[in-house]
Amino acid sequence: MTAETDNRRPLTGIRVVEVSSFVASPLCGLTLAQLGAEVIRVDPVGGAADINRLPLTDDGTTSIYWTGLNRGKKSVTADLRSPEGQSLVQRLVTESGPGGGILVTNSGGREWMSHDTLAALRSDVITLELLGGSDGSPAVDYTVNAGLGFPLITGPLSHDGPVNHVLPAWDVVCGLYAALAVTAAVRRRDETGSGTRIRLPLEDTALAVAGTLGYLTEPQVNAQSRPATGNDVYGTYGTDVVTADGDRFMLVALTPRHFRDLVRLTGTESVIESLQQALDADFARDADRYTHRAVLNALFGKWFADHSTDEVTQALAASSVLSERYRSFDEVVAAGTLTANPLFAELDQPGIGTYLAAALPATFDGEYYATGPAPQLGADTPAP
Amino acid sequence: MTAETDNRRPLTGIRVVEVSSFVASPLCGLTLAQLGAEVIRVDPVGGAADINRLPLTDDGTTSIYWTGLNRGKKSVTADLRSPEGQSLVQRLVTESGPGGGILVTNSGGREWMSHDTLAALRSDVITLELLGGSDGSPAVDYTVNAGLGFPLITGPLSHDGPVNHVLPAWDVVCGLYAALAVTAAVRRRDETGSGTRIRLPLEDTALAVAGTLGYLTEPQVNAQSRPATGNDVYGTYGTDVVTADGDRFMLVALTPRHFRDLVRLTGTESVIESLQQALDADFARDADRYTHRAVLNALFGKWFADHSTDEVTQALAASSVLSERYRSFDEVVAAGTLTANPLFAELDQPGIGTYLAAALPATFDGEYYATGPAPQLGADTPAP
Repeated sequence: MTAETDNRRPLTGIRVVEVSSFVASPLCGLTLAQLGAEVIRVDPVGGAADINRLPLTDDGTTSIYWTGLNRGKKSVTADLRSPEGQSLVQRLVTESGPGGGILVTNSGGREWMSHDTLAALRSDVITLELLGGSDGSPAVDYTVNAGLGFPLITGPLSHDGPVNHVLPAWDVVCGLYAALAVTAAVRRRDETGSGTRIRLPLEDTALAVAGTLGYLTEPQVNAQSRPATGNDVYGTYGTDVVTADGDRFMLVALTPRHFRDLVRLTGTESVIESLQQALDADFARDADRYTHRAVLNALFGKWFADHSTDEVTQALAASSVLSERYRSFDEVVAAGTLTANPLFAELDQPGIGTYLAAALPATFDGEYYATGPAPQLGADTPAP
Repeated sequence: MTAETDNRRPLTGIRVVEVSSFVASPLCGLTLAQLGAEVIRVDPVGGAADINRLPLTDDGTTSIYWTGLNRGKKSVTADLRSPEGQSLVQRLVTESGPGGGILVTNSGGREWMSHDTLAALRSDVITLELLGGSDGSPAVDYTVNAGLGFPLITGPLSHDGPVNHVLPAWDVVCGLYAALAVTAAVRRRDETGSGTRIRLPLEDTALAVAGTLGYLTEPQVNAQSRPATGNDVYGTYGTDVVTADGDRFMLVALTPRHFRDLVRLTGTESVIESLQQALDADFARDADRYTHRAVLNALFGKWFADHSTDEVTQALAASSVLSERYRSFDEVVAAGTLTANPLFAELDQPGIGTYLAAALPATFDGEYYATGPAPQLGADTPAP
């Protein structure tokens, strides 16, 4: 049962102008739109550099990427190099009612839409400028990630060289920090009437997360830093195994109970008991499971290699061991995962057709916050 | 110059109780604390399952992981199985003043701290329950990621098999969605007086992001889905190159200007011109740079292999090409990157000593929102 306390989305009445491209900044706007804000994306005439970004529909007409990240927004185009276009953007930001006065952009460094310029027109303006490097230099997810350390400890241990992530994690994290910062600034403005100038470099996003998770603390306080562990989880017990059918599963035994279940499932109780004594180890401890993971991997791996995918699936389902079969994106869709999950709802997107699109992953009193489709570029441009 | 408009952090006066462990839920609390909230982490006596999680300090006494994620919080311990302990947590949540009444937990499913139970004690309560699977089943970052598709398109193309990410990206993303959802619910409560029951499954976080970025849309609308591209960036031009000294750089040419600079830098103007004609391609287009990336990689790669790291560094610095040398976490710290960045400030952490800890990556009117150290476990437990 859904106990609706208030049907209004939390950011109802908020108006945001987004001068935006690529991932982080548009994701910020999409997220604010999901939370109920009215979001206007402003682009140069003809679109920004991301308007035709891959993937496209098979007919080559529409960017799946652009339409995905700009759902639920309005679209205004303007010649941002002309005084008229600049004045239009300034008015969109500053003359947007009590819930307006908010600009999100990854195209900073332009005097005409700087915080000070807009604050002179409207004192309670909230601006958020997304930057690349900490010093404002250009940088993107893949260069930030290369400079930080993750690629050098990612990938098979037999592989010499860095492995890039595929998910642009820093872009996503940065977009969410941006949406959070704007929402927090709105809350402060509600209370005090004051605007805020927010600055958020992509590089600082990555450094802050790497610092908080300890990756940048270890080199400061310990003699060694995080080692590469291939597909094994650092610091506890987790690894991937292959079944007799060649399917692959990820297993994680995060707690003593998970581990006991894994031992029972693989029938290795007596071997594990002997090992613990011989190694002077206690596999109820994370650190000992992690330290001795190679021998544990070999021991458990044999059981999985000797059993079919069906047998493995059933045995894992009957245990507390955390597990999942590795699947492709195709398989996720073909398995009906999206159809079965109310997070996804049919969206009729011009240029693409009807597909299952995701709402905000957090529900409020049981409600999924979906949005409408992405706009046609320039559809909401005011008549001159 | 810093134009301080209001020195109060945006969530000043907000009080949050966190019954929490591992990454996502504690990161939510840390982020809210950085934004100015008073956050009390509640643990069972002796600590939750993450209290000794690796990495530890070299002397084995203190978890770098736990202290990093619980900075700036208070710590209360209680026997959560006893009526007294449960009553204590209920009072901490519901009797915490006008800015209180907020619970964040990844230990849901307990009637005594369910939304309905707490709402009966305080009608405007905001609860956020972090779950694993969409259906509430246990799941962690690595199992969610395995089930979704990213590991099967990550890693060297010569490698057969999945490659796990090292950064627990879904945990981080989920923690930030959680902080955002709480902040949005606070804003709504400020306006309407109503509380909110928020539910946020880790799996839905991952599905929503994969959907928004198109990975789950392609299989629905196109004949094929995202291919593996090794270290090459999908959809535009980006790859890694090795210098004559064996150092490796990530390069990205996201715009026509970046690409022209890369061509000029490598002295390949005439070859590129011939190639464009012979291939009927236009490398000002993302799609064409991406389609023909193998020949471009080979062409540019030779120049980098023929030049020293110093020469490469200088040439890249003088161009618009987005680039970064791959570095380890050790190198990032040794290079003074943290010392030079005001995002980091010295923190005196009992059990660890003084180290450079990161603030919130977004600055508000020029201010970095740092926190104090993590508490001693149970330091703020009320006397019985």
